[in-house]
Amino acid sequence: MDSFKPQTETYEARVRESFAKQSMMATLGASLDEVRPGFCEISMPFSDRLTQQHGFIHAGALAAIIDSAGGYAAYTLFGDTDTVLTVEFKLNLMAPADGQLVIARGEVVRPGRSLTVTRGEVIVVKDGVEKTCAIMQQTMMRISGRTDITE
Amino acid sequence: MDSFKPQTETYEARVRESFAKQSMMATLGASLDEVRPGFCEISMPFSDRLTQQHGFIHAGALAAIIDSAGGYAAYTLFGDTDTVLTVEFKLNLMAPADGQLVIARGEVVRPGRSLTVTRGEVIVVKDGVEKTCAIMQQTMMRISGRTDITE
Amino acid sequence: MDSFKPQTETYEARVRESFAKQSMMATLGASLDEVRPGFCEISMPFSDRLTQQHGFIHAGALAAIIDSAGGYAAYTLFGDTDTVLTVEFKLNLMAPADGQLVIARGEVVRPGRSLTVTRGEVIVVKDGVEKTCAIMQQTMMRISGRTDITE
Amino acid sequence: MDSFKPQTETYEARVRESFAKQSMMATLGASLDEVRPGFCEISMPFSDRLTQQHGFIHAGALAAIIDSAGGYAAYTLFGDTDTVLTVEFKLNLMAPADGQLVIARGEVVRPGRSLTVTRGEVIVVKDGVEKTCAIMQQTMMRISGRTDITE
Repeated sequence: MDSFKPQTETYEARVRESFAKQSMMATLGASLDEVRPGFCEISMPFSDRLTQQHGFIHAGALAAIIDSAGGYAAYTLFGDTDTVLTVEFKLNLMAPADGQLVIARGEVVRPGRSLTVTRGEVIVVKDGVEKTCAIMQQTMMRISGRTDITE
Repeated sequence: MDSFKPQTETYEARVRESFAKQSMMATLGASLDEVRPGFCEISMPFSDRLTQQHGFIHAGALAAIIDSAGGYAAYTLFGDTDTVLTVEFKLNLMAPADGQLVIARGEVVRPGRSLTVTRGEVIVVKDGVEKTCAIMQQTMMRISGRTDITE
Repeated sequence: MDSFKPQTETYEARVRESFAKQSMMATLGASLDEVRPGFCEISMPFSDRLTQQHGFIHAGALAAIIDSAGGYAAYTLFGDTDTVLTVEFKLNLMAPADGQLVIARGEVVRPGRSLTVTRGEVIVVKDGVEKTCAIMQQTMMRISGRTDITE
Repeated sequence: MDSFKPQTETYEARVRESFAKQSMMATLGASLDEVRPGFCEISMPFSDRLTQQHGFIHAGALAAIIDSAGGYAAYTLFGDTDTVLTVEFKLNLMAPADGQLVIARGEVVRPGRSLTVTRGEVIVVKDGVEKTCAIMQQTMMRISGRTDITE
């Protein structure tokens, strides 16, 4: 993918402040790892509070962290007074999320004034071995003139 | 949509038993409402544990309940020794999930021996007024000879 | 679905003029049937120029007409100086397009100032019997101040 | 992406024979370029027979070649008596297909016994400059014991 140039120097602080306000992430036990221009990584340890009927992590929990990872990848390229909304995403589940940790990585494919397209993948780590368990394709929207940061 | 004929008389009991094993649903505060052949409804009250940065319910929480609703809609048409896996889903978010309750309704569009296609919608209820806030299109897979029910 | 109120009286004429400019539709042998506020139907007879390796109509030909049907469904609700672009669509292929005619029906689920969400289905007609062979979910974008109609 | 090992030595011949039977590809003027294990590239010169209302290549023509490219990427990893069907795909259109040539590249992300997940991108070439105009995520199904090759 391309390397992207952020519009502001505060992009990482803005992402971290917005992430901290997503109480859903705390409920899932997710944490924000790496933030770079056009890229965001979120990880989530296995918990038996997050499972589906076979004891693996529920697709909805994976969807939550990869949606946020893709959205914040887009948000790194926005301005200080912009906010970000998910228009849509599509998730393919390729293997059970069977492991001790899942890692969601979102990256911008094409930034735009109004719409930004991202891709993402979810990795499950079991006994030190990484396996891609889901991939995503997503459309994000920039809403100008309204910040995610509480004044 | 068509009316569907279940293969077994136990379809509702199987769905309810499988749902009860999805600890993610309890974590979200979601409950299983209606189960009919080819249809499933799950609802979830607003909680400030489920929000994104603007205080609305996070897309991942919506994704979790509509994925389960679509999946269980498919599962109603399976046999006693089948289980169900999500292949993929696509979710369009059309309005903020701003209200006291969200309701996810999944329904089968085309049942199949191996793959079943479903559609779903998520309704947000605010002060008694319903609004569609998301729609979904999903592919489910039947795994034969392996039940969701613990023996 | 809801009933929708067009912004202009010329919505059908605008759709028909724009459709006539899509040379791809002529190449496919597709014709524009019904146009209503928030709805558009396009049909295409079978031709052995449109097939995939098993002799059924290629998914790309189905994608072309359902993309246009969904897009024009959205376009019926736009203003005289707006144009319409596809942001993305997702197509599930549920049965082979095996028949003498396919009919693509697109309808608006949620109209918006910037983005409009639609759904669609493709019906194949074989010996007078209709069967749904594909369903679609789509996001369209309105570009204001630029008409599809040549001055 | 991973490197993939084909099950047969005839994978390229099978793909080329199947492609030659897709009359839709000839109708679009598309040709099959490169075939490698888990990868397929199809290109299509601009033609005013393929346009939408603004004179760019119609999304349906792009969908047709990227669907085939992703499908044949999957097919390279199948056995001699398997055939391939598209379950679903999702296409994001990121820029107008404004140029002299479009190139669709499909690659396998995860091969499977029953389902194979692929990704793809469509490049438009204008005056020698390449630009990604669309990306795709796709699910393909293997049908065993039935070849695409006419006996």
